[in-house]
Amino acid sequence: MSHNSYGHLFRVTSWGESHGPAIGCVVDGCPPGIVLTEADIQTWLEKRKPGTSRFVTQRKEPDTVRILSGVFEDERTGGPRTTGTPISLVIDNVDARSKDYTDIRDKFRPGHADYAYWAKYGIRDYRGGGRQSARETAVRVAAGAIARKVLDAAVKGGVMIRGALIQIGKEKIDRKAWNWDECAKNPFWCPDAKTAERWETYLDEVRKRGSSVGAVIEVVAENVPAGWGAPLYGKLDAELAAAMMSINAVKGVEIGAGFGAAELSGEENADEMRAKRGKPHFLSNQAGGILGGISTGQPVVVRFAVKPTSSILNPRKTVTVDMQETEIMTKGRHDPCVGIRAVPVGEAMMACVLADHYLRHRAQMGE
Amino acid sequence: MSHNSYGHLFRVTSWGESHGPAIGCVVDGCPPGIVLTEADIQTWLEKRKPGTSRFVTQRKEPDTVRILSGVFEDERTGGPRTTGTPISLVIDNVDARSKDYTDIRDKFRPGHADYAYWAKYGIRDYRGGGRQSARETAVRVAAGAIARKVLDAAVKGGVMIRGALIQIGKEKIDRKAWNWDECAKNPFWCPDAKTAERWETYLDEVRKRGSSVGAVIEVVAENVPAGWGAPLYGKLDAELAAAMMSINAVKGVEIGAGFGAAELSGEENADEMRAKRGKPHFLSNQAGGILGGISTGQPVVVRFAVKPTSSILNPRKTVTVDMQETEIMTKGRHDPCVGIRAVPVGEAMMACVLADHYLRHRAQMGE
Amino acid sequence: MSHNSYGHLFRVTSWGESHGPAIGCVVDGCPPGIVLTEADIQTWLEKRKPGTSRFVTQRKEPDTVRILSGVFEDERTGGPRTTGTPISLVIDNVDARSKDYTDIRDKFRPGHADYAYWAKYGIRDYRGGGRQSARETAVRVAAGAIARKVLDAAVKGGVMIRGALIQIGKEKIDRKAWNWDECAKNPFWCPDAKTAERWETYLDEVRKRGSSVGAVIEVVAENVPAGWGAPLYGKLDAELAAAMMSINAVKGVEIGAGFGAAELSGEENADEMRAKRGKPHFLSNQAGGILGGISTGQPVVVRFAVKPTSSILNPRKTVTVDMQETEIMTKGRHDPCVGIRAVPVGEAMMACVLADHYLRHRAQMGE
Amino acid sequence: MSHNSYGHLFRVTSWGESHGPAIGCVVDGCPPGIVLTEADIQTWLEKRKPGTSRFVTQRKEPDTVRILSGVFEDERTGGPRTTGTPISLVIDNVDARSKDYTDIRDKFRPGHADYAYWAKYGIRDYRGGGRQSARETAVRVAAGAIARKVLDAAVKGGVMIRGALIQIGKEKIDRKAWNWDECAKNPFWCPDAKTAERWETYLDEVRKRGSSVGAVIEVVAENVPAGWGAPLYGKLDAELAAAMMSINAVKGVEIGAGFGAAELSGEENADEMRAKRGKPHFLSNQAGGILGGISTGQPVVVRFAVKPTSSILNPRKTVTVDMQETEIMTKGRHDPCVGIRAVPVGEAMMACVLADHYLRHRAQMGE
Repeated sequence: MSHNSYGHLFRVTSWGESHGPAIGCVVDGCPPGIVLTEADIQTWLEKRKPGTSRFVTQRKEPDTVRILSGVFEDERTGGPRTTGTPISLVIDNVDARSKDYTDIRDKFRPGHADYAYWAKYGIRDYRGGGRQSARETAVRVAAGAIARKVLDAAVKGGVMIRGALIQIGKEKIDRKAWNWDECAKNPFWCPDAKTAERWETYLDEVRKRGSSVGAVIEVVAENVPAGWGAPLYGKLDAELAAAMMSINAVKGVEIGAGFGAAELSGEENADEMRAKRGKPHFLSNQAGGILGGISTGQPVVVRFAVKPTSSILNPRKTVTVDMQETEIMTKGRHDPCVGIRAVPVGEAMMACVLADHYLRHRAQMGE
Repeated sequence: MSHNSYGHLFRVTSWGESHGPAIGCVVDGCPPGIVLTEADIQTWLEKRKPGTSRFVTQRKEPDTVRILSGVFEDERTGGPRTTGTPISLVIDNVDARSKDYTDIRDKFRPGHADYAYWAKYGIRDYRGGGRQSARETAVRVAAGAIARKVLDAAVKGGVMIRGALIQIGKEKIDRKAWNWDECAKNPFWCPDAKTAERWETYLDEVRKRGSSVGAVIEVVAENVPAGWGAPLYGKLDAELAAAMMSINAVKGVEIGAGFGAAELSGEENADEMRAKRGKPHFLSNQAGGILGGISTGQPVVVRFAVKPTSSILNPRKTVTVDMQETEIMTKGRHDPCVGIRAVPVGEAMMACVLADHYLRHRAQMGE
Repeated sequence: MSHNSYGHLFRVTSWGESHGPAIGCVVDGCPPGIVLTEADIQTWLEKRKPGTSRFVTQRKEPDTVRILSGVFEDERTGGPRTTGTPISLVIDNVDARSKDYTDIRDKFRPGHADYAYWAKYGIRDYRGGGRQSARETAVRVAAGAIARKVLDAAVKGGVMIRGALIQIGKEKIDRKAWNWDECAKNPFWCPDAKTAERWETYLDEVRKRGSSVGAVIEVVAENVPAGWGAPLYGKLDAELAAAMMSINAVKGVEIGAGFGAAELSGEENADEMRAKRGKPHFLSNQAGGILGGISTGQPVVVRFAVKPTSSILNPRKTVTVDMQETEIMTKGRHDPCVGIRAVPVGEAMMACVLADHYLRHRAQMGE
Repeated sequence: MSHNSYGHLFRVTSWGESHGPAIGCVVDGCPPGIVLTEADIQTWLEKRKPGTSRFVTQRKEPDTVRILSGVFEDERTGGPRTTGTPISLVIDNVDARSKDYTDIRDKFRPGHADYAYWAKYGIRDYRGGGRQSARETAVRVAAGAIARKVLDAAVKGGVMIRGALIQIGKEKIDRKAWNWDECAKNPFWCPDAKTAERWETYLDEVRKRGSSVGAVIEVVAENVPAGWGAPLYGKLDAELAAAMMSINAVKGVEIGAGFGAAELSGEENADEMRAKRGKPHFLSNQAGGILGGISTGQPVVVRFAVKPTSSILNPRKTVTVDMQETEIMTKGRHDPCVGIRAVPVGEAMMACVLADHYLRHRAQMGE
């Protein structure tokens, strides 16, 4: 058991604080022979990188990843390839401004884990939130990049994993206007161009007010074979729920129809089947591609809710380490909607959970 | 890694099929010296037992639990006490009617895991759903009863864990009318007497139609000390999410404000603090008692959505094992709203996750 | 983490006390589709069963195993087959004579774990040694029978696992006379007929003296493919060492040349290779079939030392629970050389470790 | 499950290759509040460092460790202290001479894991042995330094862990002359000054011959409280066996009387007890401080055998990757007796296993 690891066979162990020298992770269990370069990982880190628009934190971190082990190249290998040994990834912290955080040394920021860490450990690295900072999610994205490689090697045609922001505050997208291609064209990973425009105005207003707002993300994995996952506590959906809930600020997770399923009748909810080329063809996907904890071959659909950034410029009531009542205004450079950068993180977690379940499936069932 | 185990230090390994000779589990890691009798466990099993009202399955299972190991009594112990060695629990299946299931031997029931199991394993015990049956949740409740004992020994005043059904179909309770005492007075664990009456009529109508409906359950744990849980993937909320999502038919989980948090502003969401007897007193509980994956001392609040029972009397389109298109009507004795019996199961999972995190906390921090 | 489980993907969770109603285990992770009957398991239990000769305990236990889950049979399956879900095994205790143990309720038996358990737990089931009893090894043998089935399905021609007793007290076998067929012909699993005769006389003498003696067991697995195992802490030899050391009374484990390797030169120790049908042919097997924690295709050779039975009829100095000095004579029915019945146990542990590593190999490498 | 991790609650995840940019590890689960500096770790690394005498490899590695996370210092903490979050350690490789290894790119070195890795992974970093190199043991020593800190904070008076080389080739120490203080005075960690002198001549001769020789190491932990460890597969001795066997080149492990126990009678083997200040006082320590997998309060005594270095200057028969028969002479800079530097590694593994079991004990039992 390791509190800072996830996955069982595709296993990621993460380390690092927001304002320490670096953050990183070790990925163990990756199959050998997969072509892997730093550029393969960097591509995905760029999606999560801070400072890319005015709607995310202005901290300037290049998030350059280095591979320290587990990859080898010589004439025989035809490119750098994984060797089956642990892959150590490191990302240096270069733009930490710890003095911004002197104020919170003695105060607990509401909505943050400051008090919880203090109550548990009696010591904490308060600079930038230390270990509780969302900065750690960069290593999830890096690990997710390797997981994608594993999945692409595993499944003919590859597994397509895409995420989108589908709600900011009370503003939801128009699902009928969903176009995956739009996601890369606006700073929100919004699949609906018109809504993206509306969000721009809305979020500018939130940002100027020094406030923040929550969001909902949807991540979809297509071309996942039927049969991945397992009863009864190693369920694919249970582990997706844990993975998404482990992302900073996430407060809810749902699969397929999710909370909406509570309102359906049995007839509406149970996805009917017809036969198509020797496989079941489902007439709907209320299940979100998972039944009994096992994939059905339909797209795996997960949604998660991100609470508003707790670091806001408006003063809030709080207490000090010595239990004096006071107020706090969180300076520093923060995302007005931390949900935006959670999109690539959610994708990465989906990739990691699927890669893990692929290896687990292969263990019990062969190929 | 074990697909059929949960918990790390308070570890439950479950086994058994719906129509096999018995179901059961092994609970490992329980501290020694705790008074434990079969009656202590039976009490909770009664809450989940089938056949207690017309709104749940009419299968007649006494669900009598036997303790086969891990408890010892002599003059010195003053009652039967846990010894710190594995506790083996067995519940016999006595009212399995396998012939009801002949029809599904060759057909995949929509909404059930029939096809997913088949796609994975190529073999399945179709009788009563075999391993995928909600019958397995009895062992969760049994394990949860032991977890409650561990928690009560751990925390002065005990940890109070209670669950309630807060929504059936589109019918929600009136939260202002919430009264925990009502839960035991109606067949729904409904905390609001008036809503319970309404549900009775509503569910009778659903049942007579041969249909089914979903539900939402809320589980609250009070008196959980601050500091339980851990960063970053061993988060208390992440593991609660996995635990609840692993229950049969669950499609969504949320903590505190949950999906509602997406609609809040930073000011509304971040729970402000005042000081009270040397501890923070929170002015709200949007966090649901967990920040950064660690408990804050506030009540831990989890909600989960249960889809409608997939076994319905109305014919549905499906395919056979040989991919012939056909229809199916699921006979057998089923719950019109499987969410009702999920209430004690949710409580049990809360108890198990908390007991596990208590032991994990004690490992790293001492007492 | 579970103190009473072993294996990662072929995972055995054991429970039960010597004088409780039963002992048993849950085997999780077994691939589906393997033909498995109670008779398949019973065969191996007979080898370990007490009461088969005057050289082992006279406790009369039929050791009849029941399979409670994880196996299913109908017309389609062609015999009872594993379903991929947990297999629950139970063996009833039928000849427990707890009153024999009244004396040890208050005294710690030297060489036994009585004091250690007391120091740890502050409570113990003293009857027959409770959880520390070698009775538990019956479930290892049962689990090992399933592991053998997994291995036979995995490797063309099957994996042959055989154990032999190669030393009792100071009396060693003549390795040149080694004949596996002899093992079943004497009550010692001795591969050398002449030595077996000598041991008979020797052990009769030990037994009549009310004393006991230690032993060394060798277990060999043939036809293990090259490539099973893994760096660096999941090494095949490291896990074999743990598995054997976890057997009651074992005090030493060695692989291949073992402690003898310390006395060799580099030239003598490193097994040279020639080519044979596209594979290396090793000219010796000092390595015991494992290099760098990974199998080489040579026979896997493990030896382990078992201490003399601590239950002897001659009085020994000890203390009581209340730290009074006293003496103890251990009544009850004991093996004069517990090493004899450790042979099938060692074989079973070899089978379980190999089955686990087979699944782990398959996870990372495919088939 | 992670092949490159060990420990359950004090968990070390190791990464890195002999000739990659660096090696390192992540230590998760360390309690917070422990003073920890790089110097605290460096002290122990100096003991294992190459190039300290002519009897070990001449590779010049300063083995300078950097702490990248998990430790925090400000005015409040009074020195750098662990925070309870993962501790990332990195040691750069500075003197890798990869060209020395061109020859082994295509040949399998007998006694090394070259062929085993190839058979498993189909790719390997052959430079300096890549992941199979004993260079990795530096990170074990670094992790062990932290484990010692945990133990010293846990037990009043600290846990004293010391190792000694007690045999080189056939040359054993005189146990009567054992003096721990001598260990630091000779290049062998030999506790017997006269034997150390003899070894010097002997090993010079081995070295000049271009050969190598094996060794036996003994590691003793004093002041370990009674009650650490657990039945039945989480036994303290089982996990010590795995830990020691996982060290490169180890072929045998024993606890207390070890293989010698096979030759003892029950009377000789079972350590008798007298009472002393409210605790048992054992009259001997054949058990090596562990009974039933649980510590008894006596010194924990482990011995392990290290095979001779496989890299020798004399040509040996082998095959190429393409299964051509050939010979090999292993150049590079090697230890004539790799057992010498295994002494601090064995100490470190003892420390890690004990720290892990301390946390596990605390989880189940409190303090």
